[in-house]
Amino acid sequence: MSSIHKQGLTGWRKKLYIIIYEADTPGGKLFDVLLLVAILLSILMVMLESVESINAKYGDLLYLAEWTFTVFFTLEYFVRIVCISKPTHYIFSFYGIIDLLSILPSYLGLFFTGYHSLIVIRSIRLLRVFRILKLARFTSEAGTLMTALKASRIKITVFLGAVTTLVIIIGTIMYIVEAGHNTGFTSIPRSIYWAIVTLTTVGYGDISPETTVGQFLASVVMILGYAIIAVPTGLVSAEMVKGINTNHEKVEKKCHNCGLKWHDNDASYCKNCGTSLEKEHETS
Amino acid sequence: MSSIHKQGLTGWRKKLYIIIYEADTPGGKLFDVLLLVAILLSILMVMLESVESINAKYGDLLYLAEWTFTVFFTLEYFVRIVCISKPTHYIFSFYGIIDLLSILPSYLGLFFTGYHSLIVIRSIRLLRVFRILKLARFTSEAGTLMTALKASRIKITVFLGAVTTLVIIIGTIMYIVEAGHNTGFTSIPRSIYWAIVTLTTVGYGDISPETTVGQFLASVVMILGYAIIAVPTGLVSAEMVKGINTNHEKVEKKCHNCGLKWHDNDASYCKNCGTSLEKEHETS
Amino acid sequence: MSSIHKQGLTGWRKKLYIIIYEADTPGGKLFDVLLLVAILLSILMVMLESVESINAKYGDLLYLAEWTFTVFFTLEYFVRIVCISKPTHYIFSFYGIIDLLSILPSYLGLFFTGYHSLIVIRSIRLLRVFRILKLARFTSEAGTLMTALKASRIKITVFLGAVTTLVIIIGTIMYIVEAGHNTGFTSIPRSIYWAIVTLTTVGYGDISPETTVGQFLASVVMILGYAIIAVPTGLVSAEMVKGINTNHEKVEKKCHNCGLKWHDNDASYCKNCGTSLEKEHETS
Amino acid sequence: MSSIHKQGLTGWRKKLYIIIYEADTPGGKLFDVLLLVAILLSILMVMLESVESINAKYGDLLYLAEWTFTVFFTLEYFVRIVCISKPTHYIFSFYGIIDLLSILPSYLGLFFTGYHSLIVIRSIRLLRVFRILKLARFTSEAGTLMTALKASRIKITVFLGAVTTLVIIIGTIMYIVEAGHNTGFTSIPRSIYWAIVTLTTVGYGDISPETTVGQFLASVVMILGYAIIAVPTGLVSAEMVKGINTNHEKVEKKCHNCGLKWHDNDASYCKNCGTSLEKEHETS
Repeated sequence: MSSIHKQGLTGWRKKLYIIIYEADTPGGKLFDVLLLVAILLSILMVMLESVESINAKYGDLLYLAEWTFTVFFTLEYFVRIVCISKPTHYIFSFYGIIDLLSILPSYLGLFFTGYHSLIVIRSIRLLRVFRILKLARFTSEAGTLMTALKASRIKITVFLGAVTTLVIIIGTIMYIVEAGHNTGFTSIPRSIYWAIVTLTTVGYGDISPETTVGQFLASVVMILGYAIIAVPTGLVSAEMVKGINTNHEKVEKKCHNCGLKWHDNDASYCKNCGTSLEKEHETS
Repeated sequence: MSSIHKQGLTGWRKKLYIIIYEADTPGGKLFDVLLLVAILLSILMVMLESVESINAKYGDLLYLAEWTFTVFFTLEYFVRIVCISKPTHYIFSFYGIIDLLSILPSYLGLFFTGYHSLIVIRSIRLLRVFRILKLARFTSEAGTLMTALKASRIKITVFLGAVTTLVIIIGTIMYIVEAGHNTGFTSIPRSIYWAIVTLTTVGYGDISPETTVGQFLASVVMILGYAIIAVPTGLVSAEMVKGINTNHEKVEKKCHNCGLKWHDNDASYCKNCGTSLEKEHETS
Repeated sequence: MSSIHKQGLTGWRKKLYIIIYEADTPGGKLFDVLLLVAILLSILMVMLESVESINAKYGDLLYLAEWTFTVFFTLEYFVRIVCISKPTHYIFSFYGIIDLLSILPSYLGLFFTGYHSLIVIRSIRLLRVFRILKLARFTSEAGTLMTALKASRIKITVFLGAVTTLVIIIGTIMYIVEAGHNTGFTSIPRSIYWAIVTLTTVGYGDISPETTVGQFLASVVMILGYAIIAVPTGLVSAEMVKGINTNHEKVEKKCHNCGLKWHDNDASYCKNCGTSLEKEHETS
Repeated sequence: MSSIHKQGLTGWRKKLYIIIYEADTPGGKLFDVLLLVAILLSILMVMLESVESINAKYGDLLYLAEWTFTVFFTLEYFVRIVCISKPTHYIFSFYGIIDLLSILPSYLGLFFTGYHSLIVIRSIRLLRVFRILKLARFTSEAGTLMTALKASRIKITVFLGAVTTLVIIIGTIMYIVEAGHNTGFTSIPRSIYWAIVTLTTVGYGDISPETTVGQFLASVVMILGYAIIAVPTGLVSAEMVKGINTNHEKVEKKCHNCGLKWHDNDASYCKNCGTSLEKEHETS
């Protein structure tokens, strides 16, 4: 991808491009590490700002630091636009939008006031956390993970659909059983909330059954949840094992006669037309 | 299945059948999507109705909406009966009964009064959620999931039996240990309820051990539960991996030239020496 | 096993042996089902007896039922001794001891009085639950489960040892951090109890960190527990997949020349000495 | 490793070395078992000491036992130094440092006083628990576990990174939604703490959502956590299945008669035609 955006760049723009967008040179790596540190620090700072006792004490310091980071990230944003051959490619990319969203709130904070809007604005700055994901390019493992998740996408959807159906039915039954005896199960949505809390084995304990029938049903739900959790796990496991197995089951060895591409690792002749797979130059 | 029920239908009945019971035509797809939306809306409505504050405010609106949906589903129910060649096949099928059960409560509500019976009647309408499962026909993945679950059915039963035995023993021991010292463990069923809550790692905290011996035993139960959860997961994983592997299995097709016995199901020529596997009588 | 114990039995003793100890005949199956029902009812009864409100109301009925079951199980115990050729084999077997222990408490209850000793005595009768496990002979699946668990026995021990070490260290650190600030972490054993509750994702909430440092450490422990649970699951999954794979990887095909037993499914000649594996009669 | 440290040792030093550092002789095994018992007892003792009620009653006894163990471990430490050819190799090894750290606190306790410093000092002695890990040399299973964990190291890091990002975003959203309505979500770090408690299915219940929107979001987080837990499990499972499969892998050893290329590592003759795989130069 990178190579296309580098076309037509010369001089300092090309140098900056390599430093900012690539990670193969020492300069590029240093920039990535510095950026990561800046992002993590700015995230930490937003978090601390939300703690009242800390904000009361070090509010001025945090305000100063916030603006330092904002100026730094603003500069980075403009440099990124300047040193790419097609700026719109960056601006409308996922990370381009995240980068913009993470600097805007500070400027918006100058115009908007009021307690709750301030909280919202401050919190939006935490979107910077997405920028860490850019580091995924350092590792190809993230790709393997995503592939396994994507492969079991439909199965996971079906599973979640079944869980949702189950949870609605359980919640409704518990509502009928517990309503009137218990202060927790006041409505069906609340009962469904309880069913989810129980089935996923989270178990807050803010709502818990009090009647004997309710406790018996809850026990059934818990054991059910215990068994159900095996399904997504089994799905992802199987998908990953499959990923490993296919690597040494069939290999790409295109037959030059009939064109069949995948053969057993130990195949010498095409299983489809009987042509030798080895001495391609002789027979062709 | 569908093709049998279509026999002998003509004109508008055949057209309606295709729209209502099948999902291959644009009309059939549109109907399915509309029905799904109607079902989800009616489910949401029943839920909202059970929230007291919302029912007090928008009660009339919800009542109107409820009757709109009831009339719509009643119409759908009769059209389904009319446009099928053997109506009894639909009426006594799982979905036929669900469809009937999801419209009956509204009519029953006209005759029955009283707070608790109303709750029960309203809640039965949530059975409509089962109708969503009809959509499973859109995907073959649900089948794969069910196959894996069915294959490990007996193992899961054995596992649940073992867990039940374990939970009764743990509950009894905890009852002996904690009874008298703790307000939670008042009877053996309650102690078993606690054992299930703990072993499945739900952990409400409504009942928790207070004596030192009880907390020690609880710790053992928790670590046990941590290890036991591996069993259903392992079962389903293994079953799914098996399902994938069998796709790549070999069949016995001995090559009369080199003698290699196992080949891919679709192999026409020996992968080892290139001799045809099919016309054995010609070359031998 | 059964066949040995049947030797030397004649007439009604042999008939009783087949009914009581075996499950292949209709009479044997009926006996097993009746026994299962009796065991489950007697277990249910013991449980109900421990619920104060039920015991107050139906105490006499439960007392009567208890003695009915006790007489029935006592009769069964003596018949089992009478109709086996070597009674000591049954008496000192696991189930023989369980059977004795499940009838003794009722007789002991006649001599011992006092609230707590009564609870203990009543509860011992719940050991009857182990008798359900006898039904495991109906299914070979239980064996597969046990094999997978046994195969990963050492790995599970190592895993539990590591978890114990981890839990002691976490508990100690949390005790140092929270002691003085929190009413929950009063001693190291209690802190370790908390660490187990957290690491196994049970999370009662009876003890929870209150200092910022404590909550941060708790977060680390939780994510750790999330990752650690993958280990026993992976172990059992791998063991079960192995059990499936070995079935079609190597098959038993003893070479009559060198004696090598396990070969690939598609092997025609011994990989060790080159002798044909097929035409055993010709070459030997 | 051991053999290098034994070089140049003679007489009683060599005998002691074999007893203390090795586990193959009866003396070595006895020493290991005695040491394990001593370590476990001393750990138990430190734990009991932290329980106020026990310390008040048996304080003198525990003090005496503590010094007995300290003297024993000090002796062991010096013997370990004396009977090894290169003492620095032991002193600066992981276990050398642990051994030193586990005896130092008792001596430090003589000089330092004050409640909290005493707690810290006492607790450091629990580092002895690490010494149990030395026993890992008894089993090769620990190695298999570590290999599987190491192999999925990067994947687990990526997974933990993604979970951290997710948890920060969820915590922030919940903070915006619940702040002002709920006494639990007072700051972003606390909201993130809640998000971790929920996503990992621990669910203390010390903080739980109270608004309807909050409870809905919490439900989504729980079901998400239910699905996410499948990822580390799948990773480790796949890694372990891989570990098992590679044991059965084939190597390239082409048969010069029938041409079959892949054979078991220990195969001497072609499994397909029985020709020797070894003496290729003779027959070709």
